[in-house]
Amino acid sequence: MKTALISVFDKNGIVEFCKGLKDLGFQLISTGGTYQLMKKEVEVKEVSELTDFPEILDGRVKTLHPRIHAGILFRREDAKHQKTVEELGIDSIDLVVNNLYPFEKVLRKEGVSEEEQVENIDIGGPSMIRAAAKNFRDVLVVTDAGDYEEVLLRLREGRNDLSYRESMAAKAFRYTAYYDALISEYFNNRLSVSDPEYLSLSYRLGTSLRYGENPHQNAAFYEKVYEENPAEWKQLHGKELSYNNYTDMYNAVRFVKEFSEPAVVGTKHNNPAGIGIGENIDEAFDKAYACDETSLFGGIFALNRPVTKHIAEVLHSFFMEIVIAPAYEEEALSILEEKKNLRVIVMPNLASFTLPKKTVKEVLGGILVQDYDDADLTEEMEVVSARKPTEEEMRDLCFGFKAVKMVASNGAVLVKDGATLGIGQGQVRRTWAVEDALSHGEGKHSGAVLASDGFFFADTVELLQKHGIRAAIQPGGSVKDPEVIELCNQYGIALVMTHIRHFRH
Amino acid sequence: MKTALISVFDKNGIVEFCKGLKDLGFQLISTGGTYQLMKKEVEVKEVSELTDFPEILDGRVKTLHPRIHAGILFRREDAKHQKTVEELGIDSIDLVVNNLYPFEKVLRKEGVSEEEQVENIDIGGPSMIRAAAKNFRDVLVVTDAGDYEEVLLRLREGRNDLSYRESMAAKAFRYTAYYDALISEYFNNRLSVSDPEYLSLSYRLGTSLRYGENPHQNAAFYEKVYEENPAEWKQLHGKELSYNNYTDMYNAVRFVKEFSEPAVVGTKHNNPAGIGIGENIDEAFDKAYACDETSLFGGIFALNRPVTKHIAEVLHSFFMEIVIAPAYEEEALSILEEKKNLRVIVMPNLASFTLPKKTVKEVLGGILVQDYDDADLTEEMEVVSARKPTEEEMRDLCFGFKAVKMVASNGAVLVKDGATLGIGQGQVRRTWAVEDALSHGEGKHSGAVLASDGFFFADTVELLQKHGIRAAIQPGGSVKDPEVIELCNQYGIALVMTHIRHFRH
Repeated sequence: MKTALISVFDKNGIVEFCKGLKDLGFQLISTGGTYQLMKKEVEVKEVSELTDFPEILDGRVKTLHPRIHAGILFRREDAKHQKTVEELGIDSIDLVVNNLYPFEKVLRKEGVSEEEQVENIDIGGPSMIRAAAKNFRDVLVVTDAGDYEEVLLRLREGRNDLSYRESMAAKAFRYTAYYDALISEYFNNRLSVSDPEYLSLSYRLGTSLRYGENPHQNAAFYEKVYEENPAEWKQLHGKELSYNNYTDMYNAVRFVKEFSEPAVVGTKHNNPAGIGIGENIDEAFDKAYACDETSLFGGIFALNRPVTKHIAEVLHSFFMEIVIAPAYEEEALSILEEKKNLRVIVMPNLASFTLPKKTVKEVLGGILVQDYDDADLTEEMEVVSARKPTEEEMRDLCFGFKAVKMVASNGAVLVKDGATLGIGQGQVRRTWAVEDALSHGEGKHSGAVLASDGFFFADTVELLQKHGIRAAIQPGGSVKDPEVIELCNQYGIALVMTHIRHFRH
Repeated sequence: MKTALISVFDKNGIVEFCKGLKDLGFQLISTGGTYQLMKKEVEVKEVSELTDFPEILDGRVKTLHPRIHAGILFRREDAKHQKTVEELGIDSIDLVVNNLYPFEKVLRKEGVSEEEQVENIDIGGPSMIRAAAKNFRDVLVVTDAGDYEEVLLRLREGRNDLSYRESMAAKAFRYTAYYDALISEYFNNRLSVSDPEYLSLSYRLGTSLRYGENPHQNAAFYEKVYEENPAEWKQLHGKELSYNNYTDMYNAVRFVKEFSEPAVVGTKHNNPAGIGIGENIDEAFDKAYACDETSLFGGIFALNRPVTKHIAEVLHSFFMEIVIAPAYEEEALSILEEKKNLRVIVMPNLASFTLPKKTVKEVLGGILVQDYDDADLTEEMEVVSARKPTEEEMRDLCFGFKAVKMVASNGAVLVKDGATLGIGQGQVRRTWAVEDALSHGEGKHSGAVLASDGFFFADTVELLQKHGIRAAIQPGGSVKDPEVIELCNQYGIALVMTHIRHFRH
């Protein structure tokens, strides 16, 4: 007779499953709450009957017993192991069914004390699961109620074979790895640990995607299991999100979150193609859209205020991939829903959710972990030219420096009245970015100012002068700063140095 | 009297540490090999004395006993718990010292069988560590020999306080999380699991960096613990690597690995600024450098052949950040070492190491996991125009399509004789990328061909015609393909469609 050890926190489906096991001739042994639930329905022994040791310490110690663990871990084909278990009268345990204390669920509850959180670290469960998974040559481990049906079917049909047991062991280790990664992130976060010696990041499958960045690449979206204050978003309408939609959405949302005033960011290929702020969201949208209607065809819009009828009508008039906003006016939503493929995303907490404190980026042989770049202009900012910017220019310079933070380096933006007029980005040469910003904004130079994410040399000042740009903002920090300032003074250009830099690669 | 439970695989420093504990009045209990080693040096009890149960199954079951686990897990301030352990005569265990079977080390050995690998999954160790870490209010857990000295010091000075015990518990969970993430990756890889329900990725701290992408961001480099065939690289000379160096190096190396013939890629801001192939590495280098000497100031070069004296001399003549190659001729290295800050990286297995099968990218609330884009031109490629490219043109078109795979989308490259002449990249509009490639390569259009990562509309063909470009390559796949082909035929432009796309964002 085969023996199954059952000890589950989540009891969904467990009684049915155990009845099925019983019908297949299994002897059942169980612990605590699981035992109490099952004993009315099906014949089951308590673990303490096998161990001759009581459950103690409010359930902290139940199955951590050599009779249990030897019953799981002994190698059935090893004569010495066989002899040992026979001599000690240890029952073979052939099937282990276990799921763990809900550490994650408790983590998501409001106002949980550390004591309650720590009490939900399961000790006995992972020990059993890991023992059973290690000995997959002889033991089947089941950690997911979703597998109960298939397990019964396979047992009935004699298909509990080695390869199935190994795949279930792999799943079991994914489960214990996730569990401890989560606990470890909890403590790291609680104790503000910086640069820990090991970093384990745990994710849960969100969606398998049709394909990746390109059609020949497979891809999937994985949710971070542990996030303190995550974005809450849901798709209201349209085609399913693609890989490139996910990356575009991330960037567009990050960009628009830079602003507290009504703001709209249009992006394409992960880069901004139009940014606008305004008294109201309609004004902000019109400015962003006007920057580059051509490139925004097939693009993405993120807004930090509800989408109005006016905006929906404009969006309806051309092809775009995604719109993201904290809410939609009823009429606006109806208009957007007429576009079959348009993905309409609502993110009610767009303003209040927090971007990750630490961001990760893949490099050769590992990852870089760094603080999220949440810095803004600081007190360090100074006007270095003889001519001071006017109040209007200063407003646009500050807006421009926020805008240029979003563009891929080297980048530059031409700005007027809270709107980007021309964006130059992703250049390997500083002057090319400035040239692009100027040429993309051709015909709109009068009264516009320029922001750059890299410092200037004289060549940039010459470009500004040539195109009649009267004010600029840049980080500063070059050995050539004095020369640049002198040239600005000669031309009467107002120059601001931020002394903070925002490269984005 | 306090009790310490010692059970370590790695026995470095353990005897000294235990002598120190003994001097502090600890009772020591231990298992298996640790016990054998210690008993000659210091008074120590075997675990089986406490449990009255033998160590069995070749050490598979040693400490998995309620007397051990209750001794660790009982809450000292809980009267009921106190009473239970007293009644059962269970000794309090106040300090747990443990490290695990070397699963990772075994993984790195050549020709290890699955059986040996699985035997190195520790079961008892993680149980003890996790129990002690959970009960950090009462118990100190030590998992790293590097902490022995501080532990003794703190015990001597009465500074084994709650906050220290909690930080050690956090470290313990980082250790068990790393351990199970590694096991889980081993099985996932062995069984080629795709889109698993949980994904835990484990990293080890490589280096804390001076700062991140920008000076106001903290950052660290973490090594992936589990890599099948990692790059072997070492810095021979120069300043320490910065955050941006790591990202640049990754891109430069990925790019140059696309080529089997002698090839050089120069990059800046993670983008290629010059790519060349040739009969020999000198020729390839000269071509790459000639593409854009200005932008490559402050850039990075990756080469897939040893660096020669000629190359070293050119590199010496201007300022650059990094050079990466599989080897350096002796004289070349001496020349490069004259530049104090230049980071010189040798990567002997540059050609043979494998890039990760799966790459990860951070997005909102999680990550995208996708296949690495290792696709090359396929049989699907077809000449769609009436005029067929000449043999030379065809060679350059294929080279160009490899080159454009490296540039940020939308991208385009102008190419001739295995050299990029102009690179347009990171644009939100297709035509801008083509315009940039043409304008950056101004004066070199004669006989050059163009490659684009996005498909063409008629506007691109008009640009080619205007600049005298006679052949082009692009993915195809637009509804406007027939119109584009007709226009090419009208102008006598040879057009190749690859039917494979390489966006890079």
